[in-house]
Amino acid sequence: MTKSERYEKGAARMKELFGAEPRPGTMHEDFFQITVENLFGDIWTRPGLELKERSMITVAALTVLARERELKVHIRGALNAGISREKINEMMIHLAHYGGWPVGVNGLRIAKEVFDEIDSKQG
Amino acid sequence: MTKSERYEKGAARMKELFGAEPRPGTMHEDFFQITVENLFGDIWTRPGLELKERSMITVAALTVLARERELKVHIRGALNAGISREKINEMMIHLAHYGGWPVGVNGLRIAKEVFDEIDSKQG
Amino acid sequence: MTKSERYEKGAARMKELFGAEPRPGTMHEDFFQITVENLFGDIWTRPGLELKERSMITVAALTVLARERELKVHIRGALNAGISREKINEMMIHLAHYGGWPVGVNGLRIAKEVFDEIDSKQG
Amino acid sequence: MTKSERYEKGAARMKELFGAEPRPGTMHEDFFQITVENLFGDIWTRPGLELKERSMITVAALTVLARERELKVHIRGALNAGISREKINEMMIHLAHYGGWPVGVNGLRIAKEVFDEIDSKQG
Amino acid sequence: MTKSERYEKGAARMKELFGAEPRPGTMHEDFFQITVENLFGDIWTRPGLELKERSMITVAALTVLARERELKVHIRGALNAGISREKINEMMIHLAHYGGWPVGVNGLRIAKEVFDEIDSKQG
Amino acid sequence: MTKSERYEKGAARMKELFGAEPRPGTMHEDFFQITVENLFGDIWTRPGLELKERSMITVAALTVLARERELKVHIRGALNAGISREKINEMMIHLAHYGGWPVGVNGLRIAKEVFDEIDSKQG
Repeated sequence: MTKSERYEKGAARMKELFGAEPRPGTMHEDFFQITVENLFGDIWTRPGLELKERSMITVAALTVLARERELKVHIRGALNAGISREKINEMMIHLAHYGGWPVGVNGLRIAKEVFDEIDSKQG
Repeated sequence: MTKSERYEKGAARMKELFGAEPRPGTMHEDFFQITVENLFGDIWTRPGLELKERSMITVAALTVLARERELKVHIRGALNAGISREKINEMMIHLAHYGGWPVGVNGLRIAKEVFDEIDSKQG
Repeated sequence: MTKSERYEKGAARMKELFGAEPRPGTMHEDFFQITVENLFGDIWTRPGLELKERSMITVAALTVLARERELKVHIRGALNAGISREKINEMMIHLAHYGGWPVGVNGLRIAKEVFDEIDSKQG
Repeated sequence: MTKSERYEKGAARMKELFGAEPRPGTMHEDFFQITVENLFGDIWTRPGLELKERSMITVAALTVLARERELKVHIRGALNAGISREKINEMMIHLAHYGGWPVGVNGLRIAKEVFDEIDSKQG
Repeated sequence: MTKSERYEKGAARMKELFGAEPRPGTMHEDFFQITVENLFGDIWTRPGLELKERSMITVAALTVLARERELKVHIRGALNAGISREKINEMMIHLAHYGGWPVGVNGLRIAKEVFDEIDSKQG
Repeated sequence: MTKSERYEKGAARMKELFGAEPRPGTMHEDFFQITVENLFGDIWTRPGLELKERSMITVAALTVLARERELKVHIRGALNAGISREKINEMMIHLAHYGGWPVGVNGLRIAKEVFDEIDSKQG
């Protein structure tokens, strides 16, 4: 079966952001496809913002909404998109003032977890 | 009475972002001073992120948290910081997918209100 | 220019729910199209839930998230989908216990506003 | 028809907090009764916290959840319960740091609206 | 000591939804009783909505509010109330568009956890 | 290096609330300092509210915002500030009605965890 053009576009963008071809894993099959086609194929490939900018506002949104699992995934994405660890930490300090202190505490903790995981694999 | 160095730094940054010296207006006097010193003097002047980046993540945070009044203020700030109307609109379309559709609908509506207000003053 | 099949499907579903062909009005043009194609064309037409059920959970989500403008739109949709005023009110009383009392107070107030607007047009 | 004991207890507590016997007004009749009996009759009359303390944590909750209409009602309640204007303002400054800056800005603005309304009636 | 009529009604409704007589376990004793009497006895037994409908909007509310522990409990309830696994999954896909993508990702993950737990006990 | 006066004030207040001199541990160094100086030095030492009152509204805010890790820290703080276990539990029962039932269930569960940890160390 051939994949749709929207799927191909979305999968390419996901590979660029997350470093690997997207795979459904244990995710619901239809939702996986909607994620690739509608979210990454249609939205993340639109021309109005650079990948780095989309990554940055996604991390900001997930931080203040306290979506911890998705935040972890997108902090990895942000690093792949070329946003430095220092900038990610600085974002958390800034956002503590717009989403409340716990948003900063948790954002920095989760960022540290991601950085530590990366470092421990490269030891 | 001389103003603190932190106040001066914060007021300068606010002027850069909002186009005018900050004034308390009807805001609680102490909170006004904390806003100038602690939020703008201490945080918005830190070196880790460019003004444009701080503005962008602030708009993102306010959009997904549905803080409409503050969002309006910071969309004006974003324009002053050099973020284009197109980018602001594009942010709203993107964020609709992380905060839910109403976040996008309202973000675009509020951005349009700000743009229209600016245009009507320049007619 | 011919419209996409996804657009046609979405527009038909929106007409069924809101009683009229969708029009962009003052909405951002691209976001309008994404709303018709991706949200209504792709999601609201999926077979897993009846229209009535989709309408009901949308109203529930908007109520507890306090998205008042969208809630108003979807309460009208719910009535068109065949959900009675009594059921809508009862949903608000129930949801007050899961989203907090103000969620119930505001949900009932907004529902009443919609009902009153409908009644005043039919006088 | 005689009213239930739970209703009487709740109505007395509401009168103490809001300064007047509760009336349904335009509120949904059943929800009004549930509010008097279940919320005020059962909960607000429990012995574990003083009225002042219940009022204070209710204002705190409504402030960080951005429930503006209910917040206005409960700021009036807080004043009736003997919490000073200064304390209410101070709460908003404090809570800005746990719910984000807009929570403080809006909390202080709404408190000022309530104080101004009270003052203008006593002119 | 005899239990109140409201308690009996609530306990019966809880048994219908969760498959077993409610027990306080480690829950705070008073809050357990308020849950049985006020939430299930007074609200969940009201006539305006079918049990299936109450269950569905409760799952919708808990999903978009990201209350993961309670969501797990109420997904089990939804299955007992006769809502199919397919419908529960479909709700999550739909709600991703009103509460943001992470709401869908987490909703589907938690639903899968519940389904897997049920299946592993019946192996 | 000498510490700032604001740091000293904040550290003293943190010691009073949490029972020990603040230490950065694994927390981001700059954010640790901002927490001591700006949050505790500037805000928590302001005269408008007693320590007990600040502690109480902080617990209320964290409870309804579902910030579980920070809530645990501040329940310990509340106990140190002289708020009884009974009052903390009662707050959770009350707040269930303003933030939704899961807010009460989780608040009571987390409070119990803190109480149990304290008791097990004193066994």
